[in-house]
Amino acid sequence: MVSVSSNSVQTITELAQKVRDAAYQLARTDIQQRNQALRCAAKALRAAETEILMVNANEVAKADVSAAFKDRMTLTHERLEAMAKGLENIAELPDPLGKELASWDRPNGLHFKRVSVPLGVVGMIYESRPNVGADAVGICIKSGNGIVLRGGSETHLTSMAIHKAMQQGLIDTGLNPDSVAMPPDSNRQHVMDMLHAVGVIDVIIPRGGYSLIKFVQQEARVPVLAHAAGLCHTYIHEKADFDKARSVLVNAKMRRTGICGATETLLIDQAIAGELLPILVSDLQKLGCRFVGNQAACKISQKIERASDEDFATEWLDAVLSVAVVKDIDEAIHHIVKYGSGHTEAILSEDDKSVRYFMDSVPSAVVMRNTSTQFCDGGEFGFGAEIGIATGRLHARGPVGIEQLTSYRYEVYGDGQVRA
Amino acid sequence: MVSVSSNSVQTITELAQKVRDAAYQLARTDIQQRNQALRCAAKALRAAETEILMVNANEVAKADVSAAFKDRMTLTHERLEAMAKGLENIAELPDPLGKELASWDRPNGLHFKRVSVPLGVVGMIYESRPNVGADAVGICIKSGNGIVLRGGSETHLTSMAIHKAMQQGLIDTGLNPDSVAMPPDSNRQHVMDMLHAVGVIDVIIPRGGYSLIKFVQQEARVPVLAHAAGLCHTYIHEKADFDKARSVLVNAKMRRTGICGATETLLIDQAIAGELLPILVSDLQKLGCRFVGNQAACKISQKIERASDEDFATEWLDAVLSVAVVKDIDEAIHHIVKYGSGHTEAILSEDDKSVRYFMDSVPSAVVMRNTSTQFCDGGEFGFGAEIGIATGRLHARGPVGIEQLTSYRYEVYGDGQVRA
Repeated sequence: MVSVSSNSVQTITELAQKVRDAAYQLARTDIQQRNQALRCAAKALRAAETEILMVNANEVAKADVSAAFKDRMTLTHERLEAMAKGLENIAELPDPLGKELASWDRPNGLHFKRVSVPLGVVGMIYESRPNVGADAVGICIKSGNGIVLRGGSETHLTSMAIHKAMQQGLIDTGLNPDSVAMPPDSNRQHVMDMLHAVGVIDVIIPRGGYSLIKFVQQEARVPVLAHAAGLCHTYIHEKADFDKARSVLVNAKMRRTGICGATETLLIDQAIAGELLPILVSDLQKLGCRFVGNQAACKISQKIERASDEDFATEWLDAVLSVAVVKDIDEAIHHIVKYGSGHTEAILSEDDKSVRYFMDSVPSAVVMRNTSTQFCDGGEFGFGAEIGIATGRLHARGPVGIEQLTSYRYEVYGDGQVRA
Repeated sequence: MVSVSSNSVQTITELAQKVRDAAYQLARTDIQQRNQALRCAAKALRAAETEILMVNANEVAKADVSAAFKDRMTLTHERLEAMAKGLENIAELPDPLGKELASWDRPNGLHFKRVSVPLGVVGMIYESRPNVGADAVGICIKSGNGIVLRGGSETHLTSMAIHKAMQQGLIDTGLNPDSVAMPPDSNRQHVMDMLHAVGVIDVIIPRGGYSLIKFVQQEARVPVLAHAAGLCHTYIHEKADFDKARSVLVNAKMRRTGICGATETLLIDQAIAGELLPILVSDLQKLGCRFVGNQAACKISQKIERASDEDFATEWLDAVLSVAVVKDIDEAIHHIVKYGSGHTEAILSEDDKSVRYFMDSVPSAVVMRNTSTQFCDGGEFGFGAEIGIATGRLHARGPVGIEQLTSYRYEVYGDGQVRA
């Protein structure tokens, strides 16, 4: 572990306090101003395209990393345009602030309201995918939150250039640009300081690989919204429609194997496994998938290798599927409780009662019927934009969009009432 | 700091895992069963009165603590009866689980629902006020959560006896009693282990004095719902009704000075301070209150001593009032932002526009108009019962009742949809 540098602590605390003060102003702006800031930020991003792409090309050239890593860190005209469009899309979403979430009266005449307000300051820690920073800023501006951005060091200068464009959007709207901030350098100590900035940063949102998220969850004193793993299950119940099951499973596993909503394990009732499993294996194998499974699964298909206990706890993020043939719905649920990561699980079944039982019994953030686990995504949920996905129980679960970045306050209206 | 004992870690992890498994069953019970368990627990509490009071009397006799401390740790027939009644009252509240919080459709035909579910396992850390344990258990049973209780060591045996009655309530209803648990002894290391039990305890709720809460907030890796301080302000705006202001302020300051919702600081507009402040001082002085204030306040009343900056940051929890005469509403808001603890603030004013401005500008969990800050209480809010008050921004703010101990899941209904 890096030793604590009091200098850096001061930097981050001061920076976050400045963000906090500016966010406090942003929280009081009306929605037209925040939307305008988003559109101006998109404009500033497009205006800075040449500069941003040049800075980025330099960083890509210098980075001593894998080809896949280089691809993720690279910006192009298209990727920059997608970022700008993303900001404009966020401007079209409804205002998440000032919504009356509940209201009631008490016998003594007091009137109560629960009203949505911003969370405060978000600490965003992400790897070298500079577009993540622009999305996160857009969501925070819309929801009246301040944000401290800490992107991967390989693209620090790219992130800085994007950050500048985001601030320009606020300036061009006449708003204080300090609600969006970045530490001045890519010193790794800043991450630790952000994780410990209790009272000035309200929530940490990490985006990146398993080891980053685990590190953040272990070290943070500030609350964290995140998912460390997405070990999603698709369970094919004995009363499933076979045609739906085939197309949904192919999509759930193979559409994109590297995203957290991809299915990693197939659970299938033994009553139908003999007939359906060979077809599913054949469908997926054509697309390059390989298989590991429990004894019952191996008995049905020679293409399935024997899985270890460890395999069922593995998020493959690849063209590999764990397969368990199960006795019944209870064994399927038990498997999910034992191995799942609380992310997304689907049941494929035409039987309403079994679906209800499954949904009530599986302790995950998202439970689905007759559809692909790959739909677990803020855009697909209709949130318009997402800053991450959360698998914890507190505050937000599932996709984290603008609404999930709000808190609430109580407003209590009296006419001189005193407490007895 | 106590060094880590791996033995204890094992104990708490095992204990909490057992609670987790039982809570998972409790979450699937229907509301009649949970209400029945609460009523049976009340009955078991009454049946065990002789034993509980005897155990308690022994502990009180042995404890080498102040008279006020002894009073807090002492149980009587009346206090036990109040605990039993509390459980029965919780049984009367509506079910917080399985509520459809939102639902919507997407253009591809997917139907979404957001449904309330239990949080999971609550870690309750409290001082030697044994009644706190019974209330917390009642709220957790109602909301389908498991709970690990860790009360003050001076009343460990009393808490154990209460805990036994609570478990009896579950047993008598045919439910697994393991959703309510206590470590077997009062080893202080258990507290640390609970604070670090990420993955088996979902949220820590501390109840007690400032130093306990601060310790918990600093050490916990598990998320915490708490308030460390309740530095509440009452702001008398220039357009206040004087009669209301007098009675509300007396109540806000003096009804009970030791609770977190008690007003600690009076802010008053200079336009009315000359006329109203001497009356307020006189009202409060008759009840034994003393005063510290800023220069302008001292000029108006000789009964006000000069306050230090530190005084305005002090939660007196006593018959002391800090007074600041302010230029206008912005200075009042600025004072609250600078010194407040984000708990509860009230504005006394007949002017709607100023009230709106104040509420939108003060970043506290609860903002009130023309009423007493002492109303910040779960019972007064109509929550029926509260397990604490939270001043953080994440998850719950203000009084934490049964609804605040829920999370949600998404249910997604499809008919074979796949993601493009």
